[in-house]
Amino acid sequence: MTSARVPACPDGVAPRTAKGLATLAAEALARLRATTPLVQCVTNVVTTNLVANALLAVGASPAMADVPGESEELAGVAGALLVNLGTPAPDQRASIGGTVAAARGAGTPWVLDPVAVGVLSWRTRTALGLLAEAPAIVRGNASEVRALAGVAGGGRGVDARHGVDDARDAAAAVASTTGGVVAVSGLVDLVTDARSQVRLAVGHAWLARVTGAGCALGGLCAAFAAVAEPLDAAVAATGLFGLAAEDAARGAAGPASFQVALLDRLASFEPDELGARLATSALVDDVAAVRA
Amino acid sequence: MTSARVPACPDGVAPRTAKGLATLAAEALARLRATTPLVQCVTNVVTTNLVANALLAVGASPAMADVPGESEELAGVAGALLVNLGTPAPDQRASIGGTVAAARGAGTPWVLDPVAVGVLSWRTRTALGLLAEAPAIVRGNASEVRALAGVAGGGRGVDARHGVDDARDAAAAVASTTGGVVAVSGLVDLVTDARSQVRLAVGHAWLARVTGAGCALGGLCAAFAAVAEPLDAAVAATGLFGLAAEDAARGAAGPASFQVALLDRLASFEPDELGARLATSALVDDVAAVRA
Amino acid sequence: MTSARVPACPDGVAPRTAKGLATLAAEALARLRATTPLVQCVTNVVTTNLVANALLAVGASPAMADVPGESEELAGVAGALLVNLGTPAPDQRASIGGTVAAARGAGTPWVLDPVAVGVLSWRTRTALGLLAEAPAIVRGNASEVRALAGVAGGGRGVDARHGVDDARDAAAAVASTTGGVVAVSGLVDLVTDARSQVRLAVGHAWLARVTGAGCALGGLCAAFAAVAEPLDAAVAATGLFGLAAEDAARGAAGPASFQVALLDRLASFEPDELGARLATSALVDDVAAVRA
Repeated sequence: MTSARVPACPDGVAPRTAKGLATLAAEALARLRATTPLVQCVTNVVTTNLVANALLAVGASPAMADVPGESEELAGVAGALLVNLGTPAPDQRASIGGTVAAARGAGTPWVLDPVAVGVLSWRTRTALGLLAEAPAIVRGNASEVRALAGVAGGGRGVDARHGVDDARDAAAAVASTTGGVVAVSGLVDLVTDARSQVRLAVGHAWLARVTGAGCALGGLCAAFAAVAEPLDAAVAATGLFGLAAEDAARGAAGPASFQVALLDRLASFEPDELGARLATSALVDDVAAVRA
Repeated sequence: MTSARVPACPDGVAPRTAKGLATLAAEALARLRATTPLVQCVTNVVTTNLVANALLAVGASPAMADVPGESEELAGVAGALLVNLGTPAPDQRASIGGTVAAARGAGTPWVLDPVAVGVLSWRTRTALGLLAEAPAIVRGNASEVRALAGVAGGGRGVDARHGVDDARDAAAAVASTTGGVVAVSGLVDLVTDARSQVRLAVGHAWLARVTGAGCALGGLCAAFAAVAEPLDAAVAATGLFGLAAEDAARGAAGPASFQVALLDRLASFEPDELGARLATSALVDDVAAVRA
Repeated sequence: MTSARVPACPDGVAPRTAKGLATLAAEALARLRATTPLVQCVTNVVTTNLVANALLAVGASPAMADVPGESEELAGVAGALLVNLGTPAPDQRASIGGTVAAARGAGTPWVLDPVAVGVLSWRTRTALGLLAEAPAIVRGNASEVRALAGVAGGGRGVDARHGVDDARDAAAAVASTTGGVVAVSGLVDLVTDARSQVRLAVGHAWLARVTGAGCALGGLCAAFAAVAEPLDAAVAATGLFGLAAEDAARGAAGPASFQVALLDRLASFEPDELGARLATSALVDDVAAVRA
């Protein structure tokens, strides 16, 4: 594909292979554990506890700082920033712009989680505006990513009404707009930088029964973005989260014991195991080849 | 009883029997699972995660949207609305009135959870005002329901100082005021629409050791109100929650493992089982006969 | 030591011994269970659920009331107050001063948890100002307590970069300023009232992998402060929390199952067991002797 909106080789990053991505993911997890990056989260009040615990489990140091005046101050020293639009109270709205600007000014990579865009007007407008602020990674479900790309027919809240294949073109378009990476969560996950498309057949249906599972994955994307290139970070986060979910589902009696097991498993996952399992569960396509 | 405040047969709904209610509850749970209603929650920051997870567990789709500007927008498309007064921050206060009005305008049933009314002045006044907005269900503990009925001597926070029998008359009076249903939580639960009184001997003492157990039940009342008449919805929610709690307590080591098991059990409960067990744990009285 | 800032015998409280403190802790836990004190929490949105559940588990009655207008109203009737600076949104900022004043006016003991002071400017200034309001207990990690004492080189968020021994002098200085007690959390915990120093070799490394573990301990400090003298309360809370953590870690598969087991264990811990185990894990030093 040679659309004007999808450059053939953005950022000069070499195309990835599944094996290469798996190795990079393993290295990123080891680096994350060794360096404990400070991950600032401007996120929603429903799932902030889970996001913080997921970050602690994987080895990062969460700072859930979103208050005007403090939020901008922290963004300058954080290793990465997550902006999640799940419950944008007026005070938080007031701090988002300055916090993203502070992160960009300090060279801090940031992740956008556009919760429920396409359904609610304010956050849709805000998310569209934030695409111009160069998020390293945009993480959402298929309906949210379609809404960001301006494709009509969104979801009806945090649910995804669309499958990940329905969002393939939208994801590429958004990645082209931001110059970064888009991660689409679904039964099969998709990560793309507009050049490479990585499909990951990982995860478990119970993730849709745990509030904030997507938010936690957004947090992990930020943690990995502190220690790896955006594409590798999004693949590592998505792969680790999905594989941990598969393991957690075994032996769990329902969505709540599954959530407990998921956090435990994020803490116990070893880099080598992540590399070995990702190498067999990731499929990488060159966009040009796929769409030719 | 023929008090002027308690009409003999509100809304033209036929009196229920325990067996009839049990069948309707089973049907409502099946319908809930089949239709995944969108349940909007304007609720407190302490327990919003648990309420969302309880809704996901039972099969609904939660949307914890309470921000001014967004909240009213969502209320028009939600299947039901929960308004919980647990932590009424100024921004949330600003959105409650418009959100309830939007729900009413769209014909969306709404549930009021008057947390700690009778103790704190603002929320007591607000809850009393909201009784005029025709909540389909009011869910509270005995002290809260007594405060809504203007009976002196409330609780001292979220604790109930009174048993459910102390709130029988108050519940009938509040139901008469709203034209809807009142559900009183306690060791024995009471649901009334001023015509019928349903007592449910379900639940477990550990529910009082889990923050937000009552809030979660309020959420379930809203979920069922999206798919059933208010009386049937409140009975189904109360019965399902209490029976799941009984099952969860077996094998739990304390209140935290109990909470995990409770959510798991809400997800695994089958409609047929709900119907069969409710038929033997619900006691229905005709108010007139009881009070004659 | 006879520094001008550390009076030889503040408040006329007799020096404690380990055995005496253990007995007082056991009595305090029994009293807490018997009286169910109302503990008001002005705390952060990330961990408010865990703090509430920890309070319920130990036998207290939490009231997470921080809204301007309500917060001051409740402080006058609560048994103790917790002020945690973890997410100081503007509305909460507006209520802290009045709430502390109401608590002091009513003779309600209050606990300050200065989350991430030394890193973020607003909360550092606020915490320093609150030291003049006579908190019964200040609970923080070593970096936070050093920041309160004006020692250069703080942490970088909620992490402690310093061990508890690095905060010994700082803790004594802060206790001297407030006339109360300072509890420093770390691998070994320290509690001091400037006269006595109590070191508690309790706890588990997984506490650092659970968001809000420190906040929960702050809540328990407040609960015990409602039924015991500040020094005894801080020792009882710290000892109970650390010993419960040790027990919870056995059999847990990771930080999330550990958190569940910790809450369960807080609920099941018996006063006699607390006394017996504290008597062997607490070390008491007279400050004068230690520093001579």
